[in-house]
Amino acid sequence: MNKPTNPTARVARSGGRAARRAARAAPVPEHLRSIHPGMEGGTLKPLTQQDMERIHSSVLDALENIGLADAPQSGIDYLVGAGCILGDDGRIRFPRALVEDTIAKANRSITLFSRDGKTDLELSGNRVHYGTAGAAVSMVDVHGREYRHSTVQDLHDAARIADQLNNIHFLQRPMVCRDIADNREMDLNSIYASAAGTTKHIGVSFSEPDFVDDGLEMLHMMAGGEDKWRERPFVSNSNCFVVPPMKFATESCEVMEKCILGGMPVLLLSAGMAGATAPSTIAGAIVQACAECLAGLVYVNAVKPGAPAIFGTWPFGLDLRTGAMSVGSGEQALLTAGCAQMHSFYGVPGGAAAGAADSKLPDMQAGWEQMCSAVMAGLSGLNMVYEAGGMHASLLGFCHESLILSDDLLGQALRCVRGIEVTDETMALDQIRDTCIGGPGHYLGTSQTLSRMESDYVYPSLGDRTSPKEWAEMGKPDLLQNATARKEEILGVRSAARFDAETDKALRGRFNIHLPS
Amino acid sequence: MNKPTNPTARVARSGGRAARRAARAAPVPEHLRSIHPGMEGGTLKPLTQQDMERIHSSVLDALENIGLADAPQSGIDYLVGAGCILGDDGRIRFPRALVEDTIAKANRSITLFSRDGKTDLELSGNRVHYGTAGAAVSMVDVHGREYRHSTVQDLHDAARIADQLNNIHFLQRPMVCRDIADNREMDLNSIYASAAGTTKHIGVSFSEPDFVDDGLEMLHMMAGGEDKWRERPFVSNSNCFVVPPMKFATESCEVMEKCILGGMPVLLLSAGMAGATAPSTIAGAIVQACAECLAGLVYVNAVKPGAPAIFGTWPFGLDLRTGAMSVGSGEQALLTAGCAQMHSFYGVPGGAAAGAADSKLPDMQAGWEQMCSAVMAGLSGLNMVYEAGGMHASLLGFCHESLILSDDLLGQALRCVRGIEVTDETMALDQIRDTCIGGPGHYLGTSQTLSRMESDYVYPSLGDRTSPKEWAEMGKPDLLQNATARKEEILGVRSAARFDAETDKALRGRFNIHLPS
Repeated sequence: MNKPTNPTARVARSGGRAARRAARAAPVPEHLRSIHPGMEGGTLKPLTQQDMERIHSSVLDALENIGLADAPQSGIDYLVGAGCILGDDGRIRFPRALVEDTIAKANRSITLFSRDGKTDLELSGNRVHYGTAGAAVSMVDVHGREYRHSTVQDLHDAARIADQLNNIHFLQRPMVCRDIADNREMDLNSIYASAAGTTKHIGVSFSEPDFVDDGLEMLHMMAGGEDKWRERPFVSNSNCFVVPPMKFATESCEVMEKCILGGMPVLLLSAGMAGATAPSTIAGAIVQACAECLAGLVYVNAVKPGAPAIFGTWPFGLDLRTGAMSVGSGEQALLTAGCAQMHSFYGVPGGAAAGAADSKLPDMQAGWEQMCSAVMAGLSGLNMVYEAGGMHASLLGFCHESLILSDDLLGQALRCVRGIEVTDETMALDQIRDTCIGGPGHYLGTSQTLSRMESDYVYPSLGDRTSPKEWAEMGKPDLLQNATARKEEILGVRSAARFDAETDKALRGRFNIHLPS
Repeated sequence: MNKPTNPTARVARSGGRAARRAARAAPVPEHLRSIHPGMEGGTLKPLTQQDMERIHSSVLDALENIGLADAPQSGIDYLVGAGCILGDDGRIRFPRALVEDTIAKANRSITLFSRDGKTDLELSGNRVHYGTAGAAVSMVDVHGREYRHSTVQDLHDAARIADQLNNIHFLQRPMVCRDIADNREMDLNSIYASAAGTTKHIGVSFSEPDFVDDGLEMLHMMAGGEDKWRERPFVSNSNCFVVPPMKFATESCEVMEKCILGGMPVLLLSAGMAGATAPSTIAGAIVQACAECLAGLVYVNAVKPGAPAIFGTWPFGLDLRTGAMSVGSGEQALLTAGCAQMHSFYGVPGGAAAGAADSKLPDMQAGWEQMCSAVMAGLSGLNMVYEAGGMHASLLGFCHESLILSDDLLGQALRCVRGIEVTDETMALDQIRDTCIGGPGHYLGTSQTLSRMESDYVYPSLGDRTSPKEWAEMGKPDLLQNATARKEEILGVRSAARFDAETDKALRGRFNIHLPS
């Protein structure tokens, strides 16, 4: 049975194991951990330089000749003031020089602040961050195999879970609080429920321009004053500022203007669906998304030069057989990776969607769907990977257990983003020589192996690596049951992100907060 | 609730849907299918050119100064004859010029033949093929959650399943027939059970040199004569020709010599475990694997210049906490992707392991583990992605249901390998203009969308994309139960790859065939 050379043989020499155990017992300093938020990706390049130049040329053509319809009057004023041309057909067209000029002047680096200053995100270059996002309308009950309406408590719980997961770097609100009928209250409670659950950076989305002032007032109270809010805005606004193809979303543009003026970073979100609201070809969907987001970038810079804006080309895939959205496909992974390259091409901080599943449950399909786009997004150097945890049913369902498991999945993706270090030390020629010639013939106990046990390797929390024998002895642990146990453990402790009593009293006095104290 | 701009809204315009249904009803010609065996990867480059040059320099150093021990006498004769130096310490060292010369002269392109000529694999450049491999000792009973000994019937069934899956391009024998006690009979029955189940290219592995003659005799009988076998050898031999670090596997080398002379393509398999039998660093493990495989390449070309040999750098990951193998990690995906780049650097056809899981069952963990390395292997342009279907428990268990599901998983990976086509047509500027200006405002019914419905998109077979509502109406289909149903469907039909009655009678007269007629 090929014994001498069987690659499946397990290695367990007691001397090495004891040394490894001792090494592992020592705590690992943060700076020596193997993965971090903001690692540099960029080794995956589905587009060539020439491809990107061709895409950009088409983008300029689309902006100059097709333009965008339906800007609000305020937007028309901003844009025409900046040099755009309002046509007789009501479409706003963008001269090439204006677009190129905007790209050259736009903010190249954005800090997305955390509330406590411990997990700020630096968006620049190919630095990769993973987090949640979306507007799911249902929660997935894993063990009951049911979909039920999502609530403000679910959102708060998602925030508390995200707060505890190292590889979820931000919380954009992933679901709609369907137990709150009034849209204004829903928006305000979404902010409250998120911020009371995590101090990581938060993304929200205002439904109507009228709600922004209340939202800002709430944020000022949370921050301890408007000046403190403006110094470190820890919440950004996700703006679906276009209705693809090539139309401004009138109300959302008005929301965006107010957010910019209120000091909130904005996500310029263009969510075309390839084959429905965007061309069915990957290149075509990227062209349209880039055109729309460049229009948005001109808009933002017309409102406030240099205002922080995330270039949010989020084209989604479609199952052309049925016309339904599909986010777990290879086409989706390519759409997102191609967009990430265009962000680099333009040199602007960007985000897109990856890591979501079409599968209804956290099963094997969900695993392969989530990993495919999540790892490709990271490898392509996407600054903000949205929808990267807990998302099922083509964005319709959110699942707390799946969010917990995404910490392992994204940890693995981040290890891939980190890549391969090639130095004299890592090439290990001396070690190979010492091991082979007069040495022990294996590397288990070498100081180099021991010293890299934590700094180079990522270990799963719930992912299981036991042998079948060990697994049977452990009672065949079930991945989903373990995820539920972890969820209950996290939710069994009151959130440390809750506001101090005085602030909370003030917030509850001013706003109708649905989440229990 | 952000209605106008909600990216989760489903699009279902009846006109478009009817047109799509009509288009889908037409059969898709093979050449218009969206994915194929042998698509060109190479967009993922975890190593820079400089990294590869440094690695190569270390590799040459290792071969010149450390060399390999334990060659058989025949191997010493071949290698010294080719210009290697046998040291007093028994190690064979490889002068740089000899190694460079071998790389320059080695076979740059290999055809791995199928038995029926329909699925030949052309290994060159960055052409990607996925298939099974391994030496699992257990079968996974998904519904009973049990591991049991693997048998010759299990191997035959795996072959029959692989034969029916478009995205499994070859069958290297993935498991050991533990119901056959005699090693010679096991090897011969592994060939028979595989070939009786699929006409795709087969990989086997002889345990002892003495068994090769019998194996070749069997293959001659299957092919209809030695000349026909040598014209289209449809079985290759997987040779664990080294025992890492840097030792030849004496017996396996003797097997290899016999295979080469018998006209079989060989896989030069170096399966070091990073942290145990190879350095714990990714770069170090790649250096050692490349050194070992280049030693093998010199060996093969000394036996028979230009003989087809697959550069099999298969370093595996290890969980350093326990010393157990781990193949589902990010480190594994990087090891394999880095090796694929080195194959391109050398310009030789290569293979490595990807797509295997540590998880014991086809659950979410298995999905993310399998996809991570499988898609990265493809994106890096690996010619032969071994272990890419059905493999669990760090190579100890094989699962038929998981193999079936890998067809969907690998189809998605292949879509990513295909990448993004950027042409005037795919950038779709005319289509964007016509849709936005005086057009319908969506792309659902455009001729471009309809024509690309099959040629550009990959649809899963068992992967589910229904909405939660449709899913509930369908009775909440279970992925694994559907995989089992598909398995029973495939195994319910007698294999078309079975031999004609006369050949089968002859084979059974000459060899003790365990598989029932």
